[in-house]
Amino acid sequence: MRRRAILYCGAVARGRAWADFVARETDDLELRVWTEAGALDAIEYLAAWIPPPGLVTRLPNLRAVFSVGAGVDQLDLATIPDHIPLVRMIEPGISECLSAYVTMAVLALHRDLPTYIAQQRESVWRELPVRPPRECRVSLLGLGRLAQAAAKPLAALGFPLAGWSRGPQDIPGIACHHGAEGLTTLLERTDILVCLLPLTPETAGILAAPLFAGLPRGAALVNAGRGGHLVEADLLAALETGQISAAMLDVTAEEPLPPKHPFWGHERILITPHVGASTQTETGIRALIANIRRVERGEAPEGLVDRACAY
Amino acid sequence: MRRRAILYCGAVARGRAWADFVARETDDLELRVWTEAGALDAIEYLAAWIPPPGLVTRLPNLRAVFSVGAGVDQLDLATIPDHIPLVRMIEPGISECLSAYVTMAVLALHRDLPTYIAQQRESVWRELPVRPPRECRVSLLGLGRLAQAAAKPLAALGFPLAGWSRGPQDIPGIACHHGAEGLTTLLERTDILVCLLPLTPETAGILAAPLFAGLPRGAALVNAGRGGHLVEADLLAALETGQISAAMLDVTAEEPLPPKHPFWGHERILITPHVGASTQTETGIRALIANIRRVERGEAPEGLVDRACAY
Repeated sequence: MRRRAILYCGAVARGRAWADFVARETDDLELRVWTEAGALDAIEYLAAWIPPPGLVTRLPNLRAVFSVGAGVDQLDLATIPDHIPLVRMIEPGISECLSAYVTMAVLALHRDLPTYIAQQRESVWRELPVRPPRECRVSLLGLGRLAQAAAKPLAALGFPLAGWSRGPQDIPGIACHHGAEGLTTLLERTDILVCLLPLTPETAGILAAPLFAGLPRGAALVNAGRGGHLVEADLLAALETGQISAAMLDVTAEEPLPPKHPFWGHERILITPHVGASTQTETGIRALIANIRRVERGEAPEGLVDRACAY
Repeated sequence: MRRRAILYCGAVARGRAWADFVARETDDLELRVWTEAGALDAIEYLAAWIPPPGLVTRLPNLRAVFSVGAGVDQLDLATIPDHIPLVRMIEPGISECLSAYVTMAVLALHRDLPTYIAQQRESVWRELPVRPPRECRVSLLGLGRLAQAAAKPLAALGFPLAGWSRGPQDIPGIACHHGAEGLTTLLERTDILVCLLPLTPETAGILAAPLFAGLPRGAALVNAGRGGHLVEADLLAALETGQISAAMLDVTAEEPLPPKHPFWGHERILITPHVGASTQTETGIRALIANIRRVERGEAPEGLVDRACAY
């Protein structure tokens, strides 16, 4: 049987593990790690984080492009022909990791861990009032699969949840809002705002002064979306006035965050280096193979990107 | 109708709020805040954190003593006659707050927040591997109500859970162990150990070198029990050798933690100032009144302390 070839462009260790997995678990597919691609006309599938410039046009028999991460914003969509399905990675490892990250960030801000970290540095033992989660309203920007996964542990902890998305949604346990008016309503009832939006031309720069002004004074911010969602100078200004009380950021406009960036030394900001989630080796390759099977059966793959929305 | 008097010894702000609540919501009870106790022979119930020395013996008509916190270890049990029921505080505010604290601590150690905090101080952006909760085995020392409450969000996040208690227990979703052999088995399967035990003569100093030696190398520790559970020098030694990788401590042997204590400046220790939970004003007084009603109906109050076990 002819083996259909997947070309992988991304972290090499994961690529080697995926190649082994495909060789072991399938008899009709093979996975080649860039830069050992072999004959490019044999490649039917591309699984990539950021492919080398011009690569896509050199794959005459390409049938689908799979992002190896949860987003596709790192890809230049203009370089991928419209007739080629573009698919983001949906796999349980990403949701589980991101749920855990978001829950940690919400709890850290709910309990004002930035203050305790600063106090520890000064050897200061001073209690802040202890409030139960039910008195802390958490709002999710974005109501996709990752946000819905993160909502589960937050609900189990007792946080009242609301969420916002482009179009209307109806999700049990989450007060759902949508559109421009819905955003205003959402922000008004928010103590901790969590960004889990896809990065698109519509959402770039959404976390900025006008949005912050719509929050109750002293609300806190988690950015587990993309650095491009946040206008960094506006966050610094809102922290300065106290409109925003604290932030936990897993993503920044420039990554790695430059050494002299004011976020590093800011006592009201907790920084993690884009570790909210990463595609897990085994669950990730299983999800990729399952999607290739769907494409080959003529079905829509899970996570098919709508080019008009860019996610 | 004669109003039965409750004497309250504890944080004054909460006492005033409780007195108002009792006056507003009942017609047969009154709550007096120490030091405005009035005639001591009118006192039938004592609700106390730490009562003044000798007070209990001056209450001839005392019918029950209620701790205003989750534990009774702060009380000198020898000063409370055996025939007086002693009751710890069980109220939903404490469980909700403590669940949130424990979840935050487990997530912070799972994601190695101490490393990211240290890196932030040095403006270093360096990712550690991202692992899903299902690969991190969490063990609870103590399987009382608080531990069972904390288990719910941890299970929702996907952490495999085990627990240990003095006597056998059977709790869905938690692999339950008990006794000395059970402890050895529990420790062997532990990546993060959470202490939620009551402090008793049997549990004092349990978190010490012999226990640490039973854990896999590099396990992490959360102490949300009492400072008396931990032998602090042994933790420092275990962090030094790497047997314990990191710890989050909400309680310490001496509170406030003295300014020159080595825990403050330790990069592998996160300190919070005993804020895991506190009795919430409204749910706490509702629980206290409900327990007084039980005592007056001749029923056992919720949280009745077994003097032989000291909890």
